[in-house]
Amino acid sequence: MVIHAPYLLFIGDATDALSIKMAQSVAHWRPDLCVGEFSVEGCTVSTGLPKLSIEEAAKKGAKTLVLGFANSGGILDKKWLPLIELAIRKGMHIVSGLHQKLTSYPELVHCAQQYDVELLDIRHPTTQFNTGTGRKRSGKRLLTVGTDCSVGKMYTSLSLEQAMSKQNMAVDFRATGQCGILVAGAGIAIDCVVADFISGAAESLSPDADADHWDVIEGQGSLSHPAFAGVSLGLLHGSQPDALVICHALNRTHMRGLPDTDFPSIETTIALNLQAARLTNPDVAIAGISVNTSAVSVEEGRAICQQLSEQFSLPCVDPLRDGTAAIVANL
Amino acid sequence: MVIHAPYLLFIGDATDALSIKMAQSVAHWRPDLCVGEFSVEGCTVSTGLPKLSIEEAAKKGAKTLVLGFANSGGILDKKWLPLIELAIRKGMHIVSGLHQKLTSYPELVHCAQQYDVELLDIRHPTTQFNTGTGRKRSGKRLLTVGTDCSVGKMYTSLSLEQAMSKQNMAVDFRATGQCGILVAGAGIAIDCVVADFISGAAESLSPDADADHWDVIEGQGSLSHPAFAGVSLGLLHGSQPDALVICHALNRTHMRGLPDTDFPSIETTIALNLQAARLTNPDVAIAGISVNTSAVSVEEGRAICQQLSEQFSLPCVDPLRDGTAAIVANL
Repeated sequence: MVIHAPYLLFIGDATDALSIKMAQSVAHWRPDLCVGEFSVEGCTVSTGLPKLSIEEAAKKGAKTLVLGFANSGGILDKKWLPLIELAIRKGMHIVSGLHQKLTSYPELVHCAQQYDVELLDIRHPTTQFNTGTGRKRSGKRLLTVGTDCSVGKMYTSLSLEQAMSKQNMAVDFRATGQCGILVAGAGIAIDCVVADFISGAAESLSPDADADHWDVIEGQGSLSHPAFAGVSLGLLHGSQPDALVICHALNRTHMRGLPDTDFPSIETTIALNLQAARLTNPDVAIAGISVNTSAVSVEEGRAICQQLSEQFSLPCVDPLRDGTAAIVANL
Repeated sequence: MVIHAPYLLFIGDATDALSIKMAQSVAHWRPDLCVGEFSVEGCTVSTGLPKLSIEEAAKKGAKTLVLGFANSGGILDKKWLPLIELAIRKGMHIVSGLHQKLTSYPELVHCAQQYDVELLDIRHPTTQFNTGTGRKRSGKRLLTVGTDCSVGKMYTSLSLEQAMSKQNMAVDFRATGQCGILVAGAGIAIDCVVADFISGAAESLSPDADADHWDVIEGQGSLSHPAFAGVSLGLLHGSQPDALVICHALNRTHMRGLPDTDFPSIETTIALNLQAARLTNPDVAIAGISVNTSAVSVEEGRAICQQLSEQFSLPCVDPLRDGTAAIVANL
């Protein structure tokens, strides 16, 4: 799945900053891939990028209109069709991370055919994958894994890629979720792959590479999450990581969305992930810990990271507040 | 997914007994669900059921024609279309476990509509599942888990169901693969579900039940298999088993299809499965060990089971040679 840049980020009439996470992710990490954002009346949030109309964006060379908003249920509201069709008529491809497919509207399919553009439903991979082989690949791999879902695995991965690039290391960010795919312009929505092919898809995501090249692979879910651990395990086995970075968020008392499920300790998370990762890479090691400390002050956050660093004899950082250079130094 | 019995088992021109595993499974475990088998010239294998033409089977009340053969690639050969259409015209539903969908042939879709019958591609679930919740359900559950793929998890599960039925226990076999689905007449091909929904699908497969009711759930893959462990883990979490039965086959030196991956010990398999299962059921226990000893003599097989039984302080049987009553007695 390859997405053509630059993008126009469509945020609709969003009023909740969380609902435009997809637009925010790419605006934050790859502003150079974006010509601007497009919103309509009623919208009260922004990515901070220049506000453009579809026509203005087309003139600035936008190649893809990205539906950068989400809603519960993942429905593609019919009210957006005229605007999407306008973008198509201006020659833009359309990217959606919504559950309901762009291709579920025959009028969009027809219009896209007429103007020879692609409708990309990135939650619905169309690639045929092979089942996993466990074969050792050349090059090096780092995978972010978490105590839970939504603890900053994508943010940490992109921060690591940035820190490694700054040190002139050969590195690629490998995206496994829709926001990451948009940032990378390529990737596989791993939780949307048919279960039989999770590991095989993960293997294809980080192919053989030069001996000193690093793939930084975006983790998904958590081995301790009753709903998503299967995805996490298949991704772990297929990634055959040399290095793991443990991602964690402060002040959670239970697993995301599951009030009855306890949150695992960092110790448990390290043990579970090392044990499972050794199946496809016996030499795997933990490279560091990344903590989202936004729930506490900067000082308290630093103190917690310091304490975790001493407890586990590993670098421990808040990637947003401190960056991840300390973890890269430990690779 | 519900399949209408009785079935006519179509084994084509098969010459390899392994290639008609789907037909063999249902002929062995549910001969009462079958009116007979249908083969064509060149076929050298048999399920042992009466040989019937499509017309004869229709007269005997067959409601579904089952494509009971497999081939590498899972292609539905065009040469079978006239025979499938004949069955449709006789009012039969069609069931296929092949990778290529029945519905990929417009002529079959048209014919099925005309005669108001279903085309069921059981490797392609169409149900919309929810993501898992980890919520504790009422009733009791047993899951078969394995040292590897294809070590007898379905056979063991069906043997356990039979043994429990004989003791008048309330029990249902819950199928997770295509052969099992045919035997049960219902189920979910769990490795064909989108990865995000593995656990949720497994949860829906064994719903709340009476306190003394047992669901015997057919396991898939192995936590030690680099290609399929994600499926095994999602199924394990969603099944929230009270009892696990470890399935094993003698004389394997490496994981199925992966010459470079070592075979795990029974000890490792027990430890990995107990650890993972405790996430959704802290009270899980191992009920017994089931070994396919067909690679050695009956006497040698018994001696091995006896030795394993003593080593692990658990009942250990060959389900084909000894039945599984000893494991049921340990529940």
